[in-house]
Amino acid sequence: MLKAKTIDPAALELLKKAATDGIETVWDRYEAQQPQCGFGTLGICCRHCLQGPCRIDPFGNGPKAGICGTTADVIVARNLLRQVAGGAAAHVDHAYEAVEALELAAEDKINYSIAGEDKLRQIATALGLETPSKDTKALALEVVRVAYADMSNHSRQPLQWLLANAPKERIAVWQSLGILPRNPDREIREAMHQTTMGMDADPVNLVLATAKQGLVDGYAGLKLATDMQDILFGIPSPVVTEANLGVLKSDSVNLIVHGHVPLLSEKIVYWAKKLSAEAEAVGAQSIHVAGICCSGNEVLMRQGIPLATNFLAQELAIVTGAVDVMVVDVQCIMPSLAQVASCYHTELITTMPIVKIPGATHIPFTLENADETAQTIVRKAIAAYKKRDPRKVRIPDQRTTIMAGFSVEAITAALAQLNPQQPLKPLVDNIANGNIFGVVATVGCNNVKVTQDSFHVEMVKELVRNNILVAATGCSAHALAKFGLMNSEGTERFAGDNLKSVLTALGHAAGLGAPLPPVLHMGSCVDNSRIGDLVTAIARYLGVDTAALPVAASAPEPQHEKALSIGTWAVTMGLTTHLGVVPPVLGSKSVTELLTQGLTEVIGGKFYVETDPILAAQGLIADIRAKRKALGLTI
Amino acid sequence: MLKAKTIDPAALELLKKAATDGIETVWDRYEAQQPQCGFGTLGICCRHCLQGPCRIDPFGNGPKAGICGTTADVIVARNLLRQVAGGAAAHVDHAYEAVEALELAAEDKINYSIAGEDKLRQIATALGLETPSKDTKALALEVVRVAYADMSNHSRQPLQWLLANAPKERIAVWQSLGILPRNPDREIREAMHQTTMGMDADPVNLVLATAKQGLVDGYAGLKLATDMQDILFGIPSPVVTEANLGVLKSDSVNLIVHGHVPLLSEKIVYWAKKLSAEAEAVGAQSIHVAGICCSGNEVLMRQGIPLATNFLAQELAIVTGAVDVMVVDVQCIMPSLAQVASCYHTELITTMPIVKIPGATHIPFTLENADETAQTIVRKAIAAYKKRDPRKVRIPDQRTTIMAGFSVEAITAALAQLNPQQPLKPLVDNIANGNIFGVVATVGCNNVKVTQDSFHVEMVKELVRNNILVAATGCSAHALAKFGLMNSEGTERFAGDNLKSVLTALGHAAGLGAPLPPVLHMGSCVDNSRIGDLVTAIARYLGVDTAALPVAASAPEPQHEKALSIGTWAVTMGLTTHLGVVPPVLGSKSVTELLTQGLTEVIGGKFYVETDPILAAQGLIADIRAKRKALGLTI
Repeated sequence: MLKAKTIDPAALELLKKAATDGIETVWDRYEAQQPQCGFGTLGICCRHCLQGPCRIDPFGNGPKAGICGTTADVIVARNLLRQVAGGAAAHVDHAYEAVEALELAAEDKINYSIAGEDKLRQIATALGLETPSKDTKALALEVVRVAYADMSNHSRQPLQWLLANAPKERIAVWQSLGILPRNPDREIREAMHQTTMGMDADPVNLVLATAKQGLVDGYAGLKLATDMQDILFGIPSPVVTEANLGVLKSDSVNLIVHGHVPLLSEKIVYWAKKLSAEAEAVGAQSIHVAGICCSGNEVLMRQGIPLATNFLAQELAIVTGAVDVMVVDVQCIMPSLAQVASCYHTELITTMPIVKIPGATHIPFTLENADETAQTIVRKAIAAYKKRDPRKVRIPDQRTTIMAGFSVEAITAALAQLNPQQPLKPLVDNIANGNIFGVVATVGCNNVKVTQDSFHVEMVKELVRNNILVAATGCSAHALAKFGLMNSEGTERFAGDNLKSVLTALGHAAGLGAPLPPVLHMGSCVDNSRIGDLVTAIARYLGVDTAALPVAASAPEPQHEKALSIGTWAVTMGLTTHLGVVPPVLGSKSVTELLTQGLTEVIGGKFYVETDPILAAQGLIADIRAKRKALGLTI
Repeated sequence: MLKAKTIDPAALELLKKAATDGIETVWDRYEAQQPQCGFGTLGICCRHCLQGPCRIDPFGNGPKAGICGTTADVIVARNLLRQVAGGAAAHVDHAYEAVEALELAAEDKINYSIAGEDKLRQIATALGLETPSKDTKALALEVVRVAYADMSNHSRQPLQWLLANAPKERIAVWQSLGILPRNPDREIREAMHQTTMGMDADPVNLVLATAKQGLVDGYAGLKLATDMQDILFGIPSPVVTEANLGVLKSDSVNLIVHGHVPLLSEKIVYWAKKLSAEAEAVGAQSIHVAGICCSGNEVLMRQGIPLATNFLAQELAIVTGAVDVMVVDVQCIMPSLAQVASCYHTELITTMPIVKIPGATHIPFTLENADETAQTIVRKAIAAYKKRDPRKVRIPDQRTTIMAGFSVEAITAALAQLNPQQPLKPLVDNIANGNIFGVVATVGCNNVKVTQDSFHVEMVKELVRNNILVAATGCSAHALAKFGLMNSEGTERFAGDNLKSVLTALGHAAGLGAPLPPVLHMGSCVDNSRIGDLVTAIARYLGVDTAALPVAASAPEPQHEKALSIGTWAVTMGLTTHLGVVPPVLGSKSVTELLTQGLTEVIGGKFYVETDPILAAQGLIADIRAKRKALGLTI
């Protein structure tokens, strides 16, 4: 493998330690997997029935159809639909647990408060519920009932959460295409049915079904999860902390939360503070919580907890020898963590019934036992701290100051300093006058096929240099945080002059005494809904379709099925959606053309695949320029 | 390919015609696919994320883990779970449409009657609803509400349809294993989540989740679908008709229904009779409907419609040149049909929104437009008849008389001739005294890897020769029908003496004047629920666990994900469940051992893989013998 593994200096340092310690990492396994199957890479392998596996010869010399007669076009489209359904299912399942938590909290059955009453009333209003006179918990239960009603909907009516929150112009487009989702679980079940043997053989129908799954993800996954979590834990507001593995402390108990759902990690943050005396009793300065992946982003956004690292370096966090407990909930958790942890004193703790790892300690988390579980885990970290071997510890001296917590509400509040009556006006005016040439949302994962963080960082530097404001979530946000794109100096160093002037004005108006960062950290992967809300609000303010806005999306290093479902949703929103890794679709020319060109005619958005970060930035800028021109913005 | 393609004489004859006519068939494509991917065959290929595809080296020289660190055990178990979830989703989606139909029928919103009032009251009683005083439609709506309530259940309570119908002893076992399903859609969504990247890495947990999907299929798929369809269209009772492609008529309009759901095919049968004058007007004797796969089985069971053929010969039906219209609904429909139909006058018609095939005519079926759609399709068949080219027609002179329609109610009614008070007693007594040595349910598909029908027929001949009574559904039933195992002569020719004496006594008691057939056709694939009901009733009558009964299941030629989910359900019922095709699990020794041995300890049932039909029969007989011994039945 000639390309570099990572550009993250902390990861580079720890890769050396891993080699010394004899630890196998994701990069080693990637090398061992070379060459990867060409059929799978092109998406032309089908394993949906026991007559297979079938493969289509991409060169046209061998089989042109599977045993049942299915073509490459169908195999590719069907595999993609099942993958996107997997991503949507992950997010709906996440949201569902949050709905359950709000229900039980409102019924006083669990020890979670409702910290985001303002969000509750905002959502209730969008849903058309009467809000002013209602008690918080009663209103919360009404909101919960709407969420459950969507998942109990056996009529042909579309998802209420979508109708209440999506742009009207988009709803009309989706309706005309017949892709408005009904009950999200019904849609996921139907997608699974549609992709079994002897079902849909029409690639266009399958791609439209995929788009529908994108909407399931966008509204019954992302949006619903964020809304529930904001009601439970509060709307994020700006916080300042640090990112990268240098945030680990040699003299404190280090407890890493990893996964995606804040239900447990919020409790761990709480109990880590509460039980600090117990840590002091064993000689530690404190109990220090840091986060990986989106559990990290969630507690960063609301509690200012530092970011340890992102997806690809999760093993390396343990290689520091300084992690006492790594507790995981769901998604993106490498099973290899158990093996890595077994070489150090680190205790790996799984908590969810559908995520167990042989070799890890399983401590079942339930909403009812959340406090007890969190205390147990914190105490396990204290106990593990005592076993930490200082000779095995190496904490890289890498940490970067970051500002995060940019919920839509926080952004609006900052803008309101300039125009209290119409807070979006300063933003829109600056887009119109070209000071902000456009907005790009960078989202998604790391992928071992890409030098870690390099695509996120190089592309975003090029974007902000060209006065594109960037909003980031997920592991993209981690990457940009590590590389100084989420602080005021980042604006000074990397932003184009026009963007710099806007960010400086906004920062001063917000009382920071310094510019806002050029990349706004908007949260976890489900918090892509915040970006959707912002885009929706701007489109509504201007009275235009979201597809017309000079806004684009990018998953520079996509890895997970969730990245595909989020990307699909972005396309349904009318956005050009860049992928920096080629998804497994190239085996079908017609599906590839449909996804990258044909969809635009019917839905406004499209996928844009470009594996070079600078070319990707330029492509996105060109796309934004074309949208500006279409809007009559000549600058 | 050295092995024979089929033992079906009609198929053999038409394969020659296909070759002459230049038609590519499923066997040609199977040959073209050789060699099939060894990684996929062993189940050790993972394509769930964009870092992959990953493959484990089964010889231990290459990669032992995927890029994320996932092992062969996890890859195999995860693939299996996703496949079984696909099968369950197919059946739940099928059942769901039937629930919707009953709802609308009960509300007088569609033109479907409620023909199975006896079934309605039987189900309502099982669900604990008060039935005697209630109006049919009101009671139907109450039953519908329970079905919807299961799919709207956001509590932790298990599936009501399961609790009302499953054996109590089994429920206790499933509860102890934590696999009692809740809302079926929630479970399917969760299984998809559980199998995305970075989730479950525990093969045992994954296999238990797979068992749970089997229960979803068994009760929210199979059982619910059969119940709804019996309420709508009536409980099957014995019918006599014919099977195999010789049922097509050279002088009539031939209309084939193919797929799995009777909602449209029942209407087609109705309108084919109604519109016969229009056919006569163009010179045809009549409009002749015949069935392929389970749409065929459904209209066979209730309307006595002949069976055209099963899965593997669906293309050959068109090759007769005598099929005017083939109308398909869902599942097991080879996309190649469009290509084959294009070489003849046959019009291929798709009807469902999630099943479109380029080249086919799409006529959307809805519950509201069912009569109009059926008439349109019948008239298309009449129009196509006029285009039929007699020089291209070759109808094999192969058709076998069959008796079908063996619902549990029909079987019980026959037995009641011998003992009106305790109808199950004669059956149980004959099992106890060894006249019936045991019962095997043969189910499932054809699979091109097996000489068509050979496994079904050879194994079942060996079973009935050894006095095993066989109950069959799906394409297994088609195969056994074609080969004379579903008529009285079949008993004379193939049954062991003891079984013959019982079947003769029963046949005479039922007024047939001849023996019952040695294989009871119990219906479509969803009608495996009937077999489950019968087994449950016998176990309840005896006060024993179903796992203790001398009963086994077999899918001799399994092809579809549904076969895997049905088989999984049979295992959860405590049955030894034979598969004649090796599923893609051999890449994990531990998962293979768990499925074929380890599960027995916890759940009673197990998978039993044997690719030789005679050895499979002997293995099943040995299993039954062991169960007889454990019950103290020494014969």
